[in-house]
Amino acid sequence: MDMPIDMQHQAMGYDRAATMFSPEGHLLQVEYAEKTVRLGVSSIGMVCSDGVFIIADKRIDDKLIVKKSANRIHEIDSNLVASFAGITADAKVLVERAQVLAQQNRLTYDSPVEPEVIIKEISKMKQQFTQYGGARPFGVSMMVAGVHNKKFELFVSDVTGNYFSYHTTAIGENDEKIKEKLRDKYKKSLSVKEGIKIALEIYEKIFEDKFDVGRFELMYIKSDDEKIVMVEGKDISNIK
Amino acid sequence: MDMPIDMQHQAMGYDRAATMFSPEGHLLQVEYAEKTVRLGVSSIGMVCSDGVFIIADKRIDDKLIVKKSANRIHEIDSNLVASFAGITADAKVLVERAQVLAQQNRLTYDSPVEPEVIIKEISKMKQQFTQYGGARPFGVSMMVAGVHNKKFELFVSDVTGNYFSYHTTAIGENDEKIKEKLRDKYKKSLSVKEGIKIALEIYEKIFEDKFDVGRFELMYIKSDDEKIVMVEGKDISNIK
Amino acid sequence: MDMPIDMQHQAMGYDRAATMFSPEGHLLQVEYAEKTVRLGVSSIGMVCSDGVFIIADKRIDDKLIVKKSANRIHEIDSNLVASFAGITADAKVLVERAQVLAQQNRLTYDSPVEPEVIIKEISKMKQQFTQYGGARPFGVSMMVAGVHNKKFELFVSDVTGNYFSYHTTAIGENDEKIKEKLRDKYKKSLSVKEGIKIALEIYEKIFEDKFDVGRFELMYIKSDDEKIVMVEGKDISNIK
Amino acid sequence: MDMPIDMQHQAMGYDRAATMFSPEGHLLQVEYAEKTVRLGVSSIGMVCSDGVFIIADKRIDDKLIVKKSANRIHEIDSNLVASFAGITADAKVLVERAQVLAQQNRLTYDSPVEPEVIIKEISKMKQQFTQYGGARPFGVSMMVAGVHNKKFELFVSDVTGNYFSYHTTAIGENDEKIKEKLRDKYKKSLSVKEGIKIALEIYEKIFEDKFDVGRFELMYIKSDDEKIVMVEGKDISNIK
Amino acid sequence: MDMPIDMQHQAMGYDRAATMFSPEGHLLQVEYAEKTVRLGVSSIGMVCSDGVFIIADKRIDDKLIVKKSANRIHEIDSNLVASFAGITADAKVLVERAQVLAQQNRLTYDSPVEPEVIIKEISKMKQQFTQYGGARPFGVSMMVAGVHNKKFELFVSDVTGNYFSYHTTAIGENDEKIKEKLRDKYKKSLSVKEGIKIALEIYEKIFEDKFDVGRFELMYIKSDDEKIVMVEGKDISNIK
Amino acid sequence: MDMPIDMQHQAMGYDRAATMFSPEGHLLQVEYAEKTVRLGVSSIGMVCSDGVFIIADKRIDDKLIVKKSANRIHEIDSNLVASFAGITADAKVLVERAQVLAQQNRLTYDSPVEPEVIIKEISKMKQQFTQYGGARPFGVSMMVAGVHNKKFELFVSDVTGNYFSYHTTAIGENDEKIKEKLRDKYKKSLSVKEGIKIALEIYEKIFEDKFDVGRFELMYIKSDDEKIVMVEGKDISNIK
Amino acid sequence: MDMPIDMQHQAMGYDRAATMFSPEGHLLQVEYAEKTVRLGVSSIGMVCSDGVFIIADKRIDDKLIVKKSANRIHEIDSNLVASFAGITADAKVLVERAQVLAQQNRLTYDSPVEPEVIIKEISKMKQQFTQYGGARPFGVSMMVAGVHNKKFELFVSDVTGNYFSYHTTAIGENDEKIKEKLRDKYKKSLSVKEGIKIALEIYEKIFEDKFDVGRFELMYIKSDDEKIVMVEGKDISNIK
Repeated sequence: MDMPIDMQHQAMGYDRAATMFSPEGHLLQVEYAEKTVRLGVSSIGMVCSDGVFIIADKRIDDKLIVKKSANRIHEIDSNLVASFAGITADAKVLVERAQVLAQQNRLTYDSPVEPEVIIKEISKMKQQFTQYGGARPFGVSMMVAGVHNKKFELFVSDVTGNYFSYHTTAIGENDEKIKEKLRDKYKKSLSVKEGIKIALEIYEKIFEDKFDVGRFELMYIKSDDEKIVMVEGKDISNIK
Repeated sequence: MDMPIDMQHQAMGYDRAATMFSPEGHLLQVEYAEKTVRLGVSSIGMVCSDGVFIIADKRIDDKLIVKKSANRIHEIDSNLVASFAGITADAKVLVERAQVLAQQNRLTYDSPVEPEVIIKEISKMKQQFTQYGGARPFGVSMMVAGVHNKKFELFVSDVTGNYFSYHTTAIGENDEKIKEKLRDKYKKSLSVKEGIKIALEIYEKIFEDKFDVGRFELMYIKSDDEKIVMVEGKDISNIK
Repeated sequence: MDMPIDMQHQAMGYDRAATMFSPEGHLLQVEYAEKTVRLGVSSIGMVCSDGVFIIADKRIDDKLIVKKSANRIHEIDSNLVASFAGITADAKVLVERAQVLAQQNRLTYDSPVEPEVIIKEISKMKQQFTQYGGARPFGVSMMVAGVHNKKFELFVSDVTGNYFSYHTTAIGENDEKIKEKLRDKYKKSLSVKEGIKIALEIYEKIFEDKFDVGRFELMYIKSDDEKIVMVEGKDISNIK
Repeated sequence: MDMPIDMQHQAMGYDRAATMFSPEGHLLQVEYAEKTVRLGVSSIGMVCSDGVFIIADKRIDDKLIVKKSANRIHEIDSNLVASFAGITADAKVLVERAQVLAQQNRLTYDSPVEPEVIIKEISKMKQQFTQYGGARPFGVSMMVAGVHNKKFELFVSDVTGNYFSYHTTAIGENDEKIKEKLRDKYKKSLSVKEGIKIALEIYEKIFEDKFDVGRFELMYIKSDDEKIVMVEGKDISNIK
Repeated sequence: MDMPIDMQHQAMGYDRAATMFSPEGHLLQVEYAEKTVRLGVSSIGMVCSDGVFIIADKRIDDKLIVKKSANRIHEIDSNLVASFAGITADAKVLVERAQVLAQQNRLTYDSPVEPEVIIKEISKMKQQFTQYGGARPFGVSMMVAGVHNKKFELFVSDVTGNYFSYHTTAIGENDEKIKEKLRDKYKKSLSVKEGIKIALEIYEKIFEDKFDVGRFELMYIKSDDEKIVMVEGKDISNIK
Repeated sequence: MDMPIDMQHQAMGYDRAATMFSPEGHLLQVEYAEKTVRLGVSSIGMVCSDGVFIIADKRIDDKLIVKKSANRIHEIDSNLVASFAGITADAKVLVERAQVLAQQNRLTYDSPVEPEVIIKEISKMKQQFTQYGGARPFGVSMMVAGVHNKKFELFVSDVTGNYFSYHTTAIGENDEKIKEKLRDKYKKSLSVKEGIKIALEIYEKIFEDKFDVGRFELMYIKSDDEKIVMVEGKDISNIK
Repeated sequence: MDMPIDMQHQAMGYDRAATMFSPEGHLLQVEYAEKTVRLGVSSIGMVCSDGVFIIADKRIDDKLIVKKSANRIHEIDSNLVASFAGITADAKVLVERAQVLAQQNRLTYDSPVEPEVIIKEISKMKQQFTQYGGARPFGVSMMVAGVHNKKFELFVSDVTGNYFSYHTTAIGENDEKIKEKLRDKYKKSLSVKEGIKIALEIYEKIFEDKFDVGRFELMYIKSDDEKIVMVEGKDISNIK
């Protein structure tokens, strides 16, 4: 056989179930789901000196759609926002789960939930869908940004159900290219305003002529009042 | 192998279960179900300055069938109507579920349900049938139009269980062609009467000689009394 | 490949489970079950000016069988009869379910059930068997005729679990041919007596030399007393 | 392809599960189970002017076996007997179920059960095994003969779970040949004695030289005392 | 195709599940399990004028094994013994089940259980494993001998879960050959002593030079005291 | 086809599930599991005139591993020890189950458990994993040695869930060779000391140059105090 | 066939389910999962004269990630730490399970848990995922180090669910090479400080030019205060 190893494994059927390892020890169904995520809409998140933000490309630019309904960034609780890349319907299941978890936490402890508690539970749920049969993995990467005890944090949970805390990162389309540029430009001392500027510059470089600030959507939390602020389209360029 | 990639994936069996990703990260069973929807009966929905409406092609023109029983637009609650494209028997399951949800909401809150609550629950149900094994996805796109707190809204939930809010849109047969024309003609300032006229003109262009207003069915809610009004056939042309 | 598309899909296995869509978005197992129905015994139902009736070809003409036991038309409740085309054992399950539903309705509301309530529940049950795995669809089309609040109605539920209300229609063998003739001959003003005559004439044309009124079975309900009347064989010709 | 359609369908695998329709709408696993029944031991049942009887070929003629233990006709209740063709172990499950049903009926209503109640329940059970996955159909045809309110009745339930009431009929080996002869010879006015004589004559014609009355077993109920009487072997010829 | 029918059916996969019929109506998995039984250790059972006995070939002749632990005949209750052919581990499950059933019967009725009650329950359990999926059939034939109300009885339950009562019979290796000889030699008037002699003579003829009475094991119950007596090896030749 | 029968059955897939018989009536998955056992570490057990012992080859000779943690012989209760060949993780499940069973017995009867009760329960558990689907058989042979009522006993339960009582026997690597030598050397009159000497001599012959008493582990129970004594490595040669 | 045996078994499908043995008695899915572990991040654990430690290569060296969130060593309880090689999301499930077990133990016994109790439970859970169908094995090796009753211990549980206690060992990438060097250098008399030095030297030899102490992470417990101490990056070289 001189088929490349990938095609051999496809021919052998190692990629037909999330519950099957390939001879190299890979979970191919999970890897395929990751491709969906890589085709998903792009978000950049960043922890700054005076807050945290997520900016997302709405991508959908259909004047028939009510703009707000195509929003990519969702409020999970008064201290917590999330964006996604991948299958939108799957993502909505996870957003709703996150919102319920946050509410339950409030009812139990009478205080806003720690962002890591949310990302941990969502990740655990995602891991189970890669290990148990009878369902497919969630085709979604989830980015969560929030504040707790005056600390700003940013997390990303991948398709396998693993998550890390980030200073800044990107998910969805062109994620690797964006992260390369973020490594170059990011400093902890950046203000939210400066951070947003950098994010927009990165998107401009990537989309070139097709860049249109009108397609973007932003949510930020700043240390002064710790409130979630949402800004869309051209107003993003005018954040102070 | 020089088969096109589609045929390769069919030959490899990636399209045999809703719970399986193809190597490109697609859910092929879901994509096939979408084809059923694209073959389904056509509806146009529109939010206007003075109300909201759905107009649907009944398509069935069999004099043996009692007209009302072939209706494509269903009353979900006194403030809410829905139409569908796809497998009719599947759609009826979702209509009934929506009606039950609306009733439960009335019993719990003693007020009509928000249209988005309905489309959200229906979409969640549809998402689950694309993720869990042992059943097939619902082969249905659902359009919901309604009023709540004097606000008129229009939603469409697709086969994957994703939904958006629309100013105006179409589902079923020729949906892309119709949406193109809607982008061209739609303005927020349109009255219900003007909107219906535009919808009929679009259908006339699409069906050409085969256009017959007798095959259409309309439900609208206007701001004066917020009541659902149903009109069929030639009477549609005479809406004031 | 130059196999016709049907054979291709069979070769690919899209037709092995009710829960699988073909690349064209078809549910092939459901379509196969419909063939069983098309081979089933023929019934004609008709709503007339003074009542409603179902006439069915018993087809079985074995003198060893007790005639009544091969009856094709079943009493569901005192205001409701049903006939079937397809797998007889499946049909009996649905008849019994319909009878239980009718009884429950009587116990709950102390009045005979609306015909549409019955056809709706039966159709819901059939839809589920086309969506969930682990069982096959019911291979049955069900025709229900009844009276409620002095209104005569006729319904047919197909294999997918969809149903319509009809003025007159046919199921089983030659259904399309019969419906063509019904479209030609049916008028709302027909009396039950005239309707039966038309039905018999249609059967005569279809069966030609093989026509034998002795093989038929009739149930009608008329507006005078709203009682179910059963007539078999030659007596059908003498209805007044 | 020029394989006959049967072999094509086998090659395609339509006959691997009871829950799968073939492209012609057949349930092949059920049809295969029917072949087992057609190879099973033969019984003739008959409703006569003065009673009802079942006569069965024990076929087993092994002097090592205690005769009574190889009996083919079973008492279900004091007014009801049953015989079977097909898989003996399956049949015993159904006989026991029938006996339990009869006992429950006695306990509930303090009277012997109607024969049709039994055959209906057994048939319902059989239908379920042709529709749900995870088990195979019962490979059994069941013949039930009994008396209730002075009426003698005879039923046969086939592999699909369908049943009819018969004046006289046969199951198992050579059933079609036997039924042909029964159609010729049966009259309602026959006495039990005459009926048995006819049955034996039919068996003699079918088995020719191999006919041996010693292999047969008979149970009858007559109108005088409505008691089940069992007769075996040569004594059958001497019934008065 | 000119493969023999057996090989064709194997190639088609009809023999891969206990729940599948072959096109001829056979349950091939059950037939394969029967081959295991035919390779199992041999037992002869016999009802005599003054008692009943089972004699079994222990076959295992390993001096490392404690003889008693390789016994082939098991006491089920004080009036009941059983031997087996097939998979020993499966057989032990059935023996234990039989012992529990006998104990329950004693507790409920305060008397030893009828042998047929035991064989009926064991057979029912075996039938279920041939009809339901998710498990394989028991690869075991069970022979039960016992006394109840002074009547001696012998039963054999086969792999399908069918059973008969026998005057005398054999299971396991060479069963057909042995039964042929038993048909020739058995008379109801034989005493237990004479019966054992005949059984040993049959084994001598079958094993020829390899015959060794030391490998056999015997359990009998005689009418004088109705106690189970066990005899092994050479002592069997000296029964009086 | 001239493939050997083994390869034919592999090609046909009879060896893919523990719940499937091959056409010869074999359970191939069980036979494959037995190969794992045959590759497992070797133990010899022996019942002697003054006690019982198990000696096992630890085989693992990694100075990184804490010796005790690689022990092959486990105390089940104060009167009972066990060793295993096969998959270690599977074996630990069975050891723990045995320990729990022994504790439950003590709690219920306030006395140490009979060794046969333990081996019987473990074997029953193993049999079930060869008959029911959804899991694989335990890849383990278990040897149990113990004392009860001053009687010393030794049992081995194989992969199928069958067990025998032995005077002396071996499991794991080279089991057949060792058993051959045991048949030659074993006498019931051997003392534990003499038995151990014989076991070591057998291992010396089998391992030849590679024999190293340091790799062995021993547990014995002697009649004087009925306590379990454990000895490892060179100390084994000095047992008195 | 002259394919190597590995490829033959792949072609035959023995490696498609954790619940299937190959003809050689291997569990191939488990062996594939082990490959994932062998590609995982490397940890060295060591029991020293004055304590115990685990040192792990964080490998992730992305400045976008918050260092602490990429930690490879986790506190299970105040006396217990754990590291992993393999699928991180799977590992997090096991860490959380271990933490819950430790908490439950504290609540029940009011004392820190024994390290072996934790590794035993985790291993049992892993074994089950190699034996039962419907899920895949955990792709994780877990290393646990802790102190209990002044005794320092180190355990590793592999993919099959087997575990040993070690003086020192390694998991993940290059484990065999590292263990070879550990066998050479380890002595029980090493202090924690000396042990860490040896571990770093081994990593230096393996990574050569790419060695960077900044990528490592260390947790140790020493006998003076039995507290867990965490040290990262360059500080590791300065442990006293």
